[in-house]
Amino acid sequence: MRRHWLSLFGRQSKPPPIAELMNLALTQPGLIYLAAGFTDPDTLPIEEVRFIVDDVLSDENCVKSALQYGSTKGLPKLRELTAERLQRVDLGLPPGVADADRVVITHGSQQLLYLLIEALCDPGDVVLVEDPTYFVFLGLLEGRGVKTHGVKLTPDGVDLDHFDYVLRRLVSSGEIKRLKLFYIVTYAHNPTGIVWSFVKKAAVLERLLRIEKLAGHPVFLVEDAAYRDLLFENRHENSALKISDSKARVIYVGTYTKPFATGIRVGFGLLPPQLIDPVLNIKANHDFGTSQFIQYVVCRALESGLYERHLGVLHEHYRAKALVMKDAIEKWFPSYIDVWHPTGGLYYWIRLPRHQCTGPRSKLFRTALRQGVLYVPGCYCYARDPWRKVPNHEMRLSFGSASASEIQKGVKRLGEVIKSISSYHTRRQT
Amino acid sequence: MRRHWLSLFGRQSKPPPIAELMNLALTQPGLIYLAAGFTDPDTLPIEEVRFIVDDVLSDENCVKSALQYGSTKGLPKLRELTAERLQRVDLGLPPGVADADRVVITHGSQQLLYLLIEALCDPGDVVLVEDPTYFVFLGLLEGRGVKTHGVKLTPDGVDLDHFDYVLRRLVSSGEIKRLKLFYIVTYAHNPTGIVWSFVKKAAVLERLLRIEKLAGHPVFLVEDAAYRDLLFENRHENSALKISDSKARVIYVGTYTKPFATGIRVGFGLLPPQLIDPVLNIKANHDFGTSQFIQYVVCRALESGLYERHLGVLHEHYRAKALVMKDAIEKWFPSYIDVWHPTGGLYYWIRLPRHQCTGPRSKLFRTALRQGVLYVPGCYCYARDPWRKVPNHEMRLSFGSASASEIQKGVKRLGEVIKSISSYHTRRQT
Repeated sequence: MRRHWLSLFGRQSKPPPIAELMNLALTQPGLIYLAAGFTDPDTLPIEEVRFIVDDVLSDENCVKSALQYGSTKGLPKLRELTAERLQRVDLGLPPGVADADRVVITHGSQQLLYLLIEALCDPGDVVLVEDPTYFVFLGLLEGRGVKTHGVKLTPDGVDLDHFDYVLRRLVSSGEIKRLKLFYIVTYAHNPTGIVWSFVKKAAVLERLLRIEKLAGHPVFLVEDAAYRDLLFENRHENSALKISDSKARVIYVGTYTKPFATGIRVGFGLLPPQLIDPVLNIKANHDFGTSQFIQYVVCRALESGLYERHLGVLHEHYRAKALVMKDAIEKWFPSYIDVWHPTGGLYYWIRLPRHQCTGPRSKLFRTALRQGVLYVPGCYCYARDPWRKVPNHEMRLSFGSASASEIQKGVKRLGEVIKSISSYHTRRQT
Repeated sequence: MRRHWLSLFGRQSKPPPIAELMNLALTQPGLIYLAAGFTDPDTLPIEEVRFIVDDVLSDENCVKSALQYGSTKGLPKLRELTAERLQRVDLGLPPGVADADRVVITHGSQQLLYLLIEALCDPGDVVLVEDPTYFVFLGLLEGRGVKTHGVKLTPDGVDLDHFDYVLRRLVSSGEIKRLKLFYIVTYAHNPTGIVWSFVKKAAVLERLLRIEKLAGHPVFLVEDAAYRDLLFENRHENSALKISDSKARVIYVGTYTKPFATGIRVGFGLLPPQLIDPVLNIKANHDFGTSQFIQYVVCRALESGLYERHLGVLHEHYRAKALVMKDAIEKWFPSYIDVWHPTGGLYYWIRLPRHQCTGPRSKLFRTALRQGVLYVPGCYCYARDPWRKVPNHEMRLSFGSASASEIQKGVKRLGEVIKSISSYHTRRQT
């Protein structure tokens, strides 16, 4: 048999949809960019990083270690601080949960997601995701030939009735034997901005544990808390780690650099004990450990209190920008749209009536682009799930990197486009 | 069928053998460590990095970009400098070869190797390596279920007769259809310290191109030049990029941080045009781009000339330490051993007579450990090739991180152990 020169993964991995949008942006100068999940360049902690690096390089006890190879698992001090911080934020975690030994440091939280899928999923295995979810994760799954099914999202987590329906269908189709994990984004969810209630997380984990007998193997709950430190209020809904039997099944994923300086890239995972070695063995082959230098920067940011102080600044900044976007949406968008107001993070989620398509080939998207405004089409955020059609009438708007006046101008233009296309439809129907 | 809870990769990926050695080291305080490929902590460019970081963070034109997301491919300026530097070092490269568009920046050169194997190899595919070779790469291949065959190494590259034999055997066994690439380490080779001659590289590429018709697809030559900047002399044997038809088949892999500061971790690849997108699509799923912050540090090190200046310091330092090890070996090792003298890098390669086993379970290894000295057993550096037995009578000694007096003491202890075990064998045989 003639083999392809590329591997299966080499053939199946596609550019992330956001790259396609970036290319569009390049061809259209002056575009207002409400698409990317970039943080605001005005909030970057330049002075803080300067202070910290100077501190690290002046400290004889750590400078040599900062410029040398470290361990695959990550800087011990950073792993300790991570465990301590979780213990503080997730008040009352059961003993043994927030344990530095369970923490693995990665090159951004994205790398941890990749390692997890590598360690757990073969092509043809099944992963459950929220409908909608973080689209880069969907690309990762598709690239590796993993099948996905979506579970409907409501403002406090997934719809449990729909989850039960999906589980029953997995059982009847036999796919339950291939179900490896359920991936959820629990704080200031990307793209909808919601916060999961603790009760829902517990209900989901309980159902997963119940289904394991039919699956024939452990089924994990992956809690992606990437936006937890970007919540506007200190609304510390507990993580799934708080659930008493979480230790063997909950994988908690976080990042320090999304809310601090995305260019530094340090993420982490708190893993069930049995997953630590498989993940580390693969990471050793990726890079035998994340850059010590950037780990030290994050470590000092935490130790010195500069990290927490910076979060305070950010919250105020983003809350204000979210308000600017809210006001603009109320002013310029038609009143019949459904707006999901974020609890944090960087995004508004907008639902139009079903007939108003927002996809990259839709009249709305193309007209908006011509008018100089770019959004993320909602369809990008849905798994390719054969059990339902991909919704095509939503959009994600980011207030992360755009300035207040760009947000106002961008939302105005977009509102006008939506109204003009809506009236076009109305005219055609009458 | 009952599925395992881990994926195939999750089950097959093993801890690197060096990790096993590290654990041994922990149980034996005061151990002299001639095993790891760590660079000397005394050579770390602390002042240089401090100057550079301050420079980057003070420069309004780049500070925001340094702390923000970049592109998956890497910092444009760093890609340009990489292409320019290759053009300078590899005098007379054919036009279009040293092209910034073909450069991809990665989180250490190890990540590039991982991405390549992901993009090119399915489980069951075949990769050729040198006998012996870089053992972490072997672990990577095994973790992904890739088959390996070894080609004998001589002091100027592989033995071409043996290479021809291996190719014929691949054809007759049908495995040629699965052959994807030949991985070679061409400058101050790990573990033997040799430099490949340009003529040998050309001869290897020519044979690979000839065999492609039988393979039915492109077969790549991966040139790992990780130790090129650690050559003691400016012995600039050209890379395989110089070969006139290299563009479509040669993958060149390099690193900036092995000879500068391993804790920073920035590597790169110069890829054939058709491989760039597949590699980037996978990298986007890994981490959507290497930390901009550490890329800026390396970029400034190159621009300011501090990188090249540091190489000069290093060469002198390592040449002196290599001499210390040479003298110690001549003084303390039995005269019948075969010593491969390095042209650069961090290692001596020692061959004992075939009956003197050096493996991790050998009497020699265990006695040496009890006497407080650790080396890398040569067997770790050989692929699991069913066509030959793994040689078990060699060792890699590193002069990278040990001090001069540790090198002297360690080699003395090791020499005494070798002699004592040798005389034990001689006594038994008589």
